Amino acid sequence: MKTRHEINTRHEITTDTFGPATKHARDRCNGACKGNCRCPQPEPSRPDMADLTRYPLVSTMRAVSFDDAVVTITWEDDTISRFHHGWLRENSPDPASRHPHSRERLVSPLDIPADIRPKSVTLESPVALAISWDLENQPVSRFDAGWLRAHCYTRHRFIANPTRHHASLTPQPAYWSAVMHSDAMLRVWLRDYLETGWSVISGAPDEHDLSTRLGARIGVVRSSNFGFQFDVMSKAVPISNAYTASDLPLHTDMPHYELPPGTQILHCLRNDAVGGESLLSDGIAVANLMRDHHPEVFRLLSQVSVPFRFQDADGDYNSRHRIIECDAAQNPIFVNWSNSTLAPLDADPEIMPQLRAAIRLFLEYLQDPRFLITLKLNAGQMLVFDNRRMLHGRKSFDPTTGGRHLQGCYLDTSEVLSRMRMLERDSGEQEDPAPEPAFI
Amino acid sequence: MKTRHEINTRHEITTDTFGPATKHARDRCNGACKGNCRCPQPEPSRPDMADLTRYPLVSTMRAVSFDDAVVTITWEDDTISRFHHGWLRENSPDPASRHPHSRERLVSPLDIPADIRPKSVTLESPVALAISWDLENQPVSRFDAGWLRAHCYTRHRFIANPTRHHASLTPQPAYWSAVMHSDAMLRVWLRDYLETGWSVISGAPDEHDLSTRLGARIGVVRSSNFGFQFDVMSKAVPISNAYTASDLPLHTDMPHYELPPGTQILHCLRNDAVGGESLLSDGIAVANLMRDHHPEVFRLLSQVSVPFRFQDADGDYNSRHRIIECDAAQNPIFVNWSNSTLAPLDADPEIMPQLRAAIRLFLEYLQDPRFLITLKLNAGQMLVFDNRRMLHGRKSFDPTTGGRHLQGCYLDTSEVLSRMRMLERDSGEQEDPAPEPAFI
Repeated sequence: MKTRHEINTRHEITTDTFGPATKHARDRCNGACKGNCRCPQPEPSRPDMADLTRYPLVSTMRAVSFDDAVVTITWEDDTISRFHHGWLRENSPDPASRHPHSRERLVSPLDIPADIRPKSVTLESPVALAISWDLENQPVSRFDAGWLRAHCYTRHRFIANPTRHHASLTPQPAYWSAVMHSDAMLRVWLRDYLETGWSVISGAPDEHDLSTRLGARIGVVRSSNFGFQFDVMSKAVPISNAYTASDLPLHTDMPHYELPPGTQILHCLRNDAVGGESLLSDGIAVANLMRDHHPEVFRLLSQVSVPFRFQDADGDYNSRHRIIECDAAQNPIFVNWSNSTLAPLDADPEIMPQLRAAIRLFLEYLQDPRFLITLKLNAGQMLVFDNRRMLHGRKSFDPTTGGRHLQGCYLDTSEVLSRMRMLERDSGEQEDPAPEPAFI
Repeated sequence: MKTRHEINTRHEITTDTFGPATKHARDRCNGACKGNCRCPQPEPSRPDMADLTRYPLVSTMRAVSFDDAVVTITWEDDTISRFHHGWLRENSPDPASRHPHSRERLVSPLDIPADIRPKSVTLESPVALAISWDLENQPVSRFDAGWLRAHCYTRHRFIANPTRHHASLTPQPAYWSAVMHSDAMLRVWLRDYLETGWSVISGAPDEHDLSTRLGARIGVVRSSNFGFQFDVMSKAVPISNAYTASDLPLHTDMPHYELPPGTQILHCLRNDAVGGESLLSDGIAVANLMRDHHPEVFRLLSQVSVPFRFQDADGDYNSRHRIIECDAAQNPIFVNWSNSTLAPLDADPEIMPQLRAAIRLFLEYLQDPRFLITLKLNAGQMLVFDNRRMLHGRKSFDPTTGGRHLQGCYLDTSEVLSRMRMLERDSGEQEDPAPEPAFI
């Protein structure tokens, strides 16, 4: 990452220019020279945007102008940004427009005349833009260059094709104590997990309630009809096929909810019965393959919604999902499939046979060796996976030969991404922000 | 609702045929006549579908046949149903195909040959269809007439136009003790609430933790970055604009999450400050109006997604939503808007001015007297509303004149609908099931 001095091109200095030997000179001058000597200038202060993210100074502002519609900024790296007047007014960080503690916006679009325009636009420094509005009782709006650059919506936008993998990926090894006690390790682990969609954490103690302890380390644990935490073991009167000793074919959990949970954590407390291996398969990789090689199957699975239902004495949950869910560019982003809770299909009878054949092909590919991962969890291991990407299952086990006990919980993807952003934000290591892919 | 006797047309009797005077004759015969006398037949037993819903016998089966692709049922009311062979096989309720306790499916599409077909199809009675499969080691599949009728996908399907209201609706009065202690009253209340999108429950005791008590009576309470339950009151260092004494313009909560909560419960513990009136406005009604009278505005708000962000020391939640979310038929189903947490708009610069104007028009209509509801909650009242339909807000209050304290929690829509279905299911009062509107 560049240092702030390196990119402060106006002074043409770098932090390397001044080693320990120059400390005395720097102390003496302290900016009194106003740039006439080659000592480092005190950095111009950056306006407070009431935003916890430290936006990198990718470039500084060289010139600014405005017309009837927009303010135009010319950056030192010769790129151009344009911001509409109303947009700048509604994003003003002054304390009457944005609350300094909650950091939430106070000024409403209804408070801003449609024809608002600046009276003057000034570069107070290469990192600070000040706007006075051509209207009574308006604040002066001061914008930070890093913030403006990060939120510019007129620079060339390149929405990258997402990487298309056609196989399940393998995560790095991870350890309970590292992930639980070091924010830096949590960040490394989360980044790897978000890339591969699954992870095995080893070295967890032989204690109950650890799945929710890891969950709470990441974010808000999601309760469901299975509780805050659930015990996966063979039960006398199971409310779910998971609570038997049978095999469980590959599935995603909870498509009977409008939003199936994004992340599942399963802590293995015991697994010494014969059988009971865990299965995983990357549904997004299979969906990519469908899209590339079976477009008609992909079209059906990504356009026709199917019903799911979970019913017991305490609930009757129904929801519909497409088996392959895509973003606006038709890139697969989630999968939804649970044979256990699929309600009777209710598609148009004209496409029912094709839909059923498409489902069968999808399930066959999930079992292809390129995708199918088989592993036997040991006591003390935790399996963490993206429930909307990695379908999971298990082989049957023989409860007369030993026990199998997993404790698990769910988190929504919003929680996982929030923790990741917080860790990135607080580490201060941020790149020139690329536009996030707009899923919708 | 018809009684089961009325629709058992084969016997051409109704419950009215046998009054108290015929009790003796009925007792004597008890079905021994095998239908030769006019006494009521013992009802043929209905196959167990491992399903908690009691599907009404809308009609009984008169004839059945099959060809290479489908089984065809002719009903006594002269309608026809066709079911594909594979569909029938995968929905077989026998205990090897569906778990009798979990009621979840065990047979996988991969277990069923693509060309499976019946060896024989028999009406064991007008309410029981039996299928033997032309394959080794297959169970006999027995289907109940009510279940088949409810899950028929080949009858004429009428997807109704949803009722389009263009104003906020008014709920019935509701009372804490009734809703909390009577399932029948809970059902009446829930049905009204699901219709109007909001409700005020009166008579709640002056106790803490009642919002989550009502929440748990409905379903699983949803925790969030604001906790399991939250206290809305003016705070010294607010993490949200809600925790100030300022006015809060109309908004939906939590669009910084991938799934904003469906229902919000706010229990008023104190509200004796000057000001602090609650505001509600039906966003779906406004969206309907936009669609009918401002199609270009509707198009922008329902197609362009906008970013939301909540940030504090403990989280950094980002999500994108369309301000008006539609189903596949372009009917508005949810709205998402929070001025407080709207992140800087990042739309295509070509449409930025139009998008901002569209937002302004939407917000103006929300304040139109047809839509805007103003009420001052009293201590002991609970405001419950559909957070994705009714935008809510409040007028500012003067904390020097008194206090204002609300306790609140969230539930996902899946929970509310599950409780409603359970109450309907367990009451046994079900109509001929109309196909549910397929949102996606």
